[in-house]
Amino acid sequence: MSKKKVVVALGHDALGSNTSAQLNAVKRTAKALADLVEANYQLTITHSNGHQVSMIHKAMTELHRVYSDYTPAPMCVCSAMSQGYVGYDIQNSLKSELLSRGISVPVSTILTQVTVDPYDEAFYAPQKAIGRYMPKEDADIEINKGNSVLETPDGFRRVVAAPQPIDIVEIDAIRTLSNADQVVIACGGGGIPVIEQQHALKGASAVIEKDCIAGKLATDLKADELLILTSVDYVYLNFEKDNQEPLKTLTVADAKHYIVEGHFGETDMLPKIMAAISYLEAVPNGKVIITSLNKTAAAIDAKIGTIITT
Amino acid sequence: MSKKKVVVALGHDALGSNTSAQLNAVKRTAKALADLVEANYQLTITHSNGHQVSMIHKAMTELHRVYSDYTPAPMCVCSAMSQGYVGYDIQNSLKSELLSRGISVPVSTILTQVTVDPYDEAFYAPQKAIGRYMPKEDADIEINKGNSVLETPDGFRRVVAAPQPIDIVEIDAIRTLSNADQVVIACGGGGIPVIEQQHALKGASAVIEKDCIAGKLATDLKADELLILTSVDYVYLNFEKDNQEPLKTLTVADAKHYIVEGHFGETDMLPKIMAAISYLEAVPNGKVIITSLNKTAAAIDAKIGTIITT
Repeated sequence: MSKKKVVVALGHDALGSNTSAQLNAVKRTAKALADLVEANYQLTITHSNGHQVSMIHKAMTELHRVYSDYTPAPMCVCSAMSQGYVGYDIQNSLKSELLSRGISVPVSTILTQVTVDPYDEAFYAPQKAIGRYMPKEDADIEINKGNSVLETPDGFRRVVAAPQPIDIVEIDAIRTLSNADQVVIACGGGGIPVIEQQHALKGASAVIEKDCIAGKLATDLKADELLILTSVDYVYLNFEKDNQEPLKTLTVADAKHYIVEGHFGETDMLPKIMAAISYLEAVPNGKVIITSLNKTAAAIDAKIGTIITT
Repeated sequence: MSKKKVVVALGHDALGSNTSAQLNAVKRTAKALADLVEANYQLTITHSNGHQVSMIHKAMTELHRVYSDYTPAPMCVCSAMSQGYVGYDIQNSLKSELLSRGISVPVSTILTQVTVDPYDEAFYAPQKAIGRYMPKEDADIEINKGNSVLETPDGFRRVVAAPQPIDIVEIDAIRTLSNADQVVIACGGGGIPVIEQQHALKGASAVIEKDCIAGKLATDLKADELLILTSVDYVYLNFEKDNQEPLKTLTVADAKHYIVEGHFGETDMLPKIMAAISYLEAVPNGKVIITSLNKTAAAIDAKIGTIITT
């Protein structure tokens, strides 16, 4: 019998904010992922890349500033580099952790592009801040290049669109490895956003939400489960208020109701719930678990975490 | 019948030395690769990353210099980023080229680690120059960190070891995609070198030669052919001398003989011939073709290029 397929979405906490912090964070993450492999799951792992793509974008900007023969690196290139960086760290740590447990499952990362619609409304009002804080003169240069800039108390930051994913370009490769019961890391940082122009796939200045692509990946793979590992143990009603209440189970219908009531933070829990709904509406027998990374083992035994079903 | 398997090794010429040059170079490369797909080959593609890893190493060094909260990025991380960057550009351009020809073969990149022996003699005398030219004071800092540095007329450069590859860690994933007749890009820049320490895979300050890993990849996949695309149409005897002579065919025995006679440039043609010998000794029915990238179509029809067999 083939293994149970689970798509695992890793947030910022699973990684780190610089190269040495990430090395340590990923070792802890690898233990949680190895627990899932030991529990006989086939894992397809996706991850955020906020800190990493910002770091790389800053680095490439500094490079261009110091050495003018290096042309600036577009966002899609920085995103590809971040998939290489984070993918390597996860596959390296997970492979090492599995070897130490005597488990020889193959682990690899597929670089992933995701098509987006150039007419997605997100392109008309970019809201996702990326890269370094800039002084006003640098912000003006960005604006003259046609980029969007946001003023914050700490300075100016470039903002890009966060459009909806349409298709995962490398889904066949991901599916082939998933069906071979291997561990696959894919769609890192939401995937490299590309726009179809006639037959060409053109890198877009955009970022796809990691939770959003996790739901899409779970749908495309018809995964048995979608496991969203974050910084809280449960989805809560009245989060961080006196009457905060953890949800042990949640149906799609209730989730929609709670969205309308405004229970879920717009940049935090809401995208996770939206991803859960989108996957469960496509795969009605599926199951979503939202919990914190360090409770993964307990979540496997359904002892903790919010379970969402149709 | 499954397709003929070919491992394609791409050199510097197939890529570029900065982000905009690479974008153009890779488009031309994609046409040559698409010709191979049209000729019914299953392609596993590997590529050099000299310019790219140098660029990223420089960028990460500048980042650390400007923002001290960013820790320096070790070579293995720069190498992983370069696999992300080059892999994305190749898979994007090749997929676009295939789509324009109405061909829907999946194309993807597998991030690849390659184990090396910590006692490889290359570690005792590092010779592979990487990264930027440094003034003496920066060179002294590198030496104090335990790194090797080479003095050149243009300044000092860091040098790292170029050890022999032992095992391709992600070979199972590569083989699975190859056996599914998909196009795979793998072992970019020779692979990320790692050393097995008990059960952990530890990133090494080293670079594996691209030609060397191409031979290993062709051996592990039992490829029908190994196609090394470089900047010359043939392997030559007395290269760049008055009596230069192109070799249309070459046997392993003759190749060994010519090596002893010193016909092949040490950093250029010799590693290609060594890779060819190593693959053909393991896969005696195999065939190696060495030619220039822009003659790929003619090489498919055996109209140009040096063909090496046992």
